[in-house]
Parts: sequence; C-alpha cells; structure tokens
Amino acid sequence: MSELRQDPVSQRWVIIAQERDSRPDEYVSTPNRRVAEACPFCAGNEIVTPEAVAVYTMGDALAHAGQPPTWQVRVVPNKYPAVRHNANGPVRNELFGTRVSANGVHEVIIECPQHAASLTELSDDQLRLTWTAYRDRLSEHARDAQWKYGQIFKNVGSAAGASIEHTHSQLIVLPHVPSDIATELASCRAYHEARGRMLLADILAQELAAGERIVAESDNFVAFCPFASRFSYETWILPRRHSAYFQRGGDGSPTDVELGELGRFVQKLLARMEAVLNRPAYNFFLHTAPFDSAPYHYYHWHVEVFPRLTKAAGFEWGTGYFINPVSPEEAAKTLRG
Amino acid sequence: MSELRQDPVSQRWVIIAQERDSRPDEYVSTPNRRVAEACPFCAGNEIVTPEAVAVYTMGDALAHAGQPPTWQVRVVPNKYPAVRHNANGPVRNELFGTRVSANGVHEVIIECPQHAASLTELSDDQLRLTWTAYRDRLSEHARDAQWKYGQIFKNVGSAAGASIEHTHSQLIVLPHVPSDIATELASCRAYHEARGRMLLADILAQELAAGERIVAESDNFVAFCPFASRFSYETWILPRRHSAYFQRGGDGSPTDVELGELGRFVQKLLARMEAVLNRPAYNFFLHTAPFDSAPYHYYHWHVEVFPRLTKAAGFEWGTGYFINPVSPEEAAKTLRG
Repeated sequence: MSELRQDPVSQRWVIIAQERDSRPDEYVSTPNRRVAEACPFCAGNEIVTPEAVAVYTMGDALAHAGQPPTWQVRVVPNKYPAVRHNANGPVRNELFGTRVSANGVHEVIIECPQHAASLTELSDDQLRLTWTAYRDRLSEHARDAQWKYGQIFKNVGSAAGASIEHTHSQLIVLPHVPSDIATELASCRAYHEARGRMLLADILAQELAAGERIVAESDNFVAFCPFASRFSYETWILPRRHSAYFQRGGDGSPTDVELGELGRFVQKLLARMEAVLNRPAYNFFLHTAPFDSAPYHYYHWHVEVFPRLTKAAGFEWGTGYFINPVSPEEAAKTLRG
Repeated sequence: MSELRQDPVSQRWVIIAQERDSRPDEYVSTPNRRVAEACPFCAGNEIVTPEAVAVYTMGDALAHAGQPPTWQVRVVPNKYPAVRHNANGPVRNELFGTRVSANGVHEVIIECPQHAASLTELSDDQLRLTWTAYRDRLSEHARDAQWKYGQIFKNVGSAAGASIEHTHSQLIVLPHVPSDIATELASCRAYHEARGRMLLADILAQELAAGERIVAESDNFVAFCPFASRFSYETWILPRRHSAYFQRGGDGSPTDVELGELGRFVQKLLARMEAVLNRPAYNFFLHTAPFDSAPYHYYHWHVEVFPRLTKAAGFEWGTGYFINPVSPEEAAKTLRG
C-alpha cells in the first residue's frame, strides 16, 4: 500500500510507493530494441494491461466502411500505480510528520496502436485524440468531489524516467492541490488582486512584444522559453485566449478544433527539439486550474516541456536553486532555427 | 556573465550560467577510463586549475622528515563557475521577473592528490582534512558580510551531475539564503517558538527510540533514513549534540576530533551504499545555519546523502511531489546489513 508522507523539516510531500519498484524497465534489458511483440502498449497485447477506462477510435469513418473500430488512443489504469483509488486508510499521526494512504488515480494514455517511440510519429488524428483524452480524463475525474487536481505528464527516454518506449503519457489524480501548482496559483492570484490583470496573459503579451524568447506561434498557441528557465531549452506553451481550465466544467476549456491544433503544435516543437538536440530524453507536463469550485479565472493552463540535457545535482537538490548553462534567449534562437 | 533570475509564476530562482556549457565532461569522452596524466585534479597537474585558495598537508610529520610538504587536500576556484565574486552589475527590472548578476564564490575541494574515483579510497587523514576544509572555507566566507550562505555539495558519477571523476566536492557561496534552507529554518523556528524545543533534536531522539530507520551510529553522529525520504536510500547524518553552525563563529561548530570522526562515518556509510547498491552515482550536501548574525540556535547542521537510482520525472517536476519506490524502513534495513 502506497503512503503519502510529509517531511516536517522541508515540508515536502513524498509518495512512498513500494510496489512500483517491481515494474519492468525495458530500457535496462533491451536498449534501442524495438520489438512490438514484447511491447505491452502495442495493439494485439491489450491483455497485458489492465482493462481500458477509455478508448478513442477514428470515429464514424471506419464504422461506415464496415470494419471493426480499431482503437487509436487507449487509456488504462497504471499496472504499477503510485497512488490507488479508495486507498483511504486511517491517517496515522507520527510524532513528527503525517502519513496517510496514497489515495488517487494513476492512468496511462497510450497514444497509438502501432509501435512508435516518439510522438513525432503520430498522425494528426492520433495527436488530436491524445489531447482530447487528456481533457476528457481530467473532466471525468473533476466530477468526483474527492479529487482536487489532475497532473498530466509525459516521460520520454530512460534519462527522463520512462520505463516503456511506446509513446504514452500519464495522469495522476490527487485529493489535494500539489505545492508547485499552489505556488503558481498564489502568484497569479496576488498579481490579479494587485492589478486586476492576468499574470500569465501579461507575460505572454510581453514575450510576444519582445520576441527574443519566442519559439513558435500558431493561430491559438504560443511557445516560448521562459525568462527564468530552470532547464536548458525549457519551453512553455500557452493559449492566446484566456483559458484557466483544461478540463470541461471551468471556463475556457479548449475546443476540439483547438485540441487538434495544440497536438500538431506540440509535435512540431518536439520534432524541432529532436532535430537540433539529437533526440534528447524529455518530459512535459500540463498545469491546469484545480477541480474544486473556487474561482481560478486569474490562471492560465499551460504546458512545460524540457529536454533532459543537464542533471539536477547536489547544489540544486540542496538549495532549490537551478543552474542552467543555456540562456533562454539562446535556446529560443536555436529552437526557432 | 552569469545571471540570477526569478520566475514570477513559480517564484523559483535560476542561475543562467552560459560559460559552464563549455566545461569538459570526461564521462562523455572517456567512460570508465582512469588516466591520472589527463586528470586536472591529480598531483602534478596543479597548473591546469586556478591557483589554490587553501592547501592542507599532513602537518609537521612530513616537514620533520625533511621532505617538501605534499598537499593532501587542495581548494581551488572553479574554472567554470556558476557564480562569480564581484559580479555585481546593475539590477535590471524586467516587466516580469528580476535579473541580477550571479554574485558569489564557487570553489572545488580536491580531496586527495592520487587519482581516486571514490572517497572510500581516502585515508583517515584525507577524510579529516576534507571535512576540515568544508568547515574552514565556510568560516572564511562567513566573515565577509556580503555573503549569507555557503552550500557544500558533492556529485559522484555522471548520473549525479559530475563531470570529473577524481573525488572532489564543491562550495557555492551566495549573498542570500536559498529557498530550501529558508524553508527548513522556518520549520525549525516555528517548532521552537511553539514548544521551546529543537525540531531536529526531537526527530533524532524519536528515530533513536524507534530504531527502524537508523542506519548507523558513532560516538557523535547518527545516520538514518528520514520518514519522508524523497529518494530511495536517502540518508541524513546528524550530530548527537546541539550544533547549528558547521562554520566557526556560531555556536557548536564541530571540533577537529569530531571532523575526523565525521569523515570516517560518512565514508563507512558510502562504502556500504557502494557495496549493496552496486556503486551508484550519488550526491550529498551539507545544510548549515546561514552566515548572518540572526540567531539560529533552533537549527542543526546535517548532511543529506542520496544515491541516484530513480529519476525525478514529469510528475515530480510538475508538482513538487516525489515518488519513492523504497520505503525508508526497508532502505535502513538494507543499509544496516
């Protein structure tokens, strides 16, 4: 049983998830090997994963042709979850620190049926359906009052913490708002209270006016390297229009058309990173407003992408400061090409 | 010129240190090769590093024998510094975020003259002198009113962010107290104000009474896996007696005898980690009270050691939460042997 523990000195939260230690790591045993028959996420091997909680097909087109609807994107519970639904056990108060069962939901979004190591290989439909799955799974869990936040994230490559090659992302739903999101919300709320304006919208406008950290633009989205990038080539993607909630139910959730555009926009950015940075391991995550009914109109959902080129070391883990050897101005220039 | 930047949304501080990108990485070019003649830290190659700011010899013994005093531990300025002394430039206020020149001192502590990849190969004298150098360099910089904190840390192995194999540690001195240390100080101060007791002393007493997370004990030091370990096999080393300041000038700085004992104690712990975890990459850092004249009697200096077995990935970087697949109770049991 996983546990959630808070350190009384640093105030950090940790999920102690013993069973995850037993998960297989295909990077260790089969570096650079691409074997669909052994891949738990390839079509045909559905039996290896827990039963799907959501399946996306191409829609009417295939059904019309009389063929069985093949899945394009498939969402399954994580077989080695960090948190578990209904894991509510007694809260044990230690003399120092609190421990509770790690309650939550841990799902895997498998982004295509064919074996692909990079989302740059996905079709436009698969991209649109992947981002639709993000929105829908967040929306589904947001309806359950016990959950307060859903973290969508993607790990690609062993150095970025991935254990399976087949392109996929993950969702961890929690009964509270994690500290980093709480800090962002507090910054945006304070700015809104002081000036009546949106911090992330004003940053975006400033970046567009200056231009030097802009990486790419589309009709509805902008990618830029943030002023204080903690990682080299870190890139944020923000919607141009005001949109606090990625999930439905809040204001401004992205439309189906926007999700298709966003999928292609992120794919193009990652293809550029793969080309100029020699296919680096990378992570991305999606920050969105929490599930509760408090107003978060002062926030903007956004995506943060960062290749794993440098390593957080003793200084970073000891201080909470980061050392980034590539300025965001240089990084944006390189990524613009 | 390095810059210090604060992100207006996350409130995180980042050192943008472009020149560090040009530092050589011997792990990339010569994996597993141990060539003293090419090593910038081996005796005989002193010309390759900047001039030493402190040199430790065995003392009178060698001089008495009529031999030139050979250095055992040597402290030099980092050739590729993340921060620079007297880097004070104008503070530029951006519309969003602040940027200032990254002012500070970045030194390297070379722990032995012979080529050794692990501090487990150091002699007792070299261990004592290394920890003496930590105390002395902190003490030296603490006397300069412009500095507020010194972070001693060690990176071992490429996966832990090291670029040079020869066993060494680093010191970064800053004109402010970094966020993670400030948070620890605030926790300890609040506990002391509420109860008139020391948080870290009470935690240590509780761990000793329970025993299940204790890894090792010596006359003056205790090693244990903390209740909410963020990394697998994370181990903290605390002094038994009250001691807030590792540097001289505050109360309770460790004595020469204690430094020798501490060096051997940490060496034994790392030898055990190397044996049971197959020589993992690891980091450690030393947290101590700041340099300023505020009272920090409620704090304890301590060392945090963590092998790099799991990787912080999208979830951790997105939320500030950690997932640790090995409980500290299991970890302590393994490390006790």
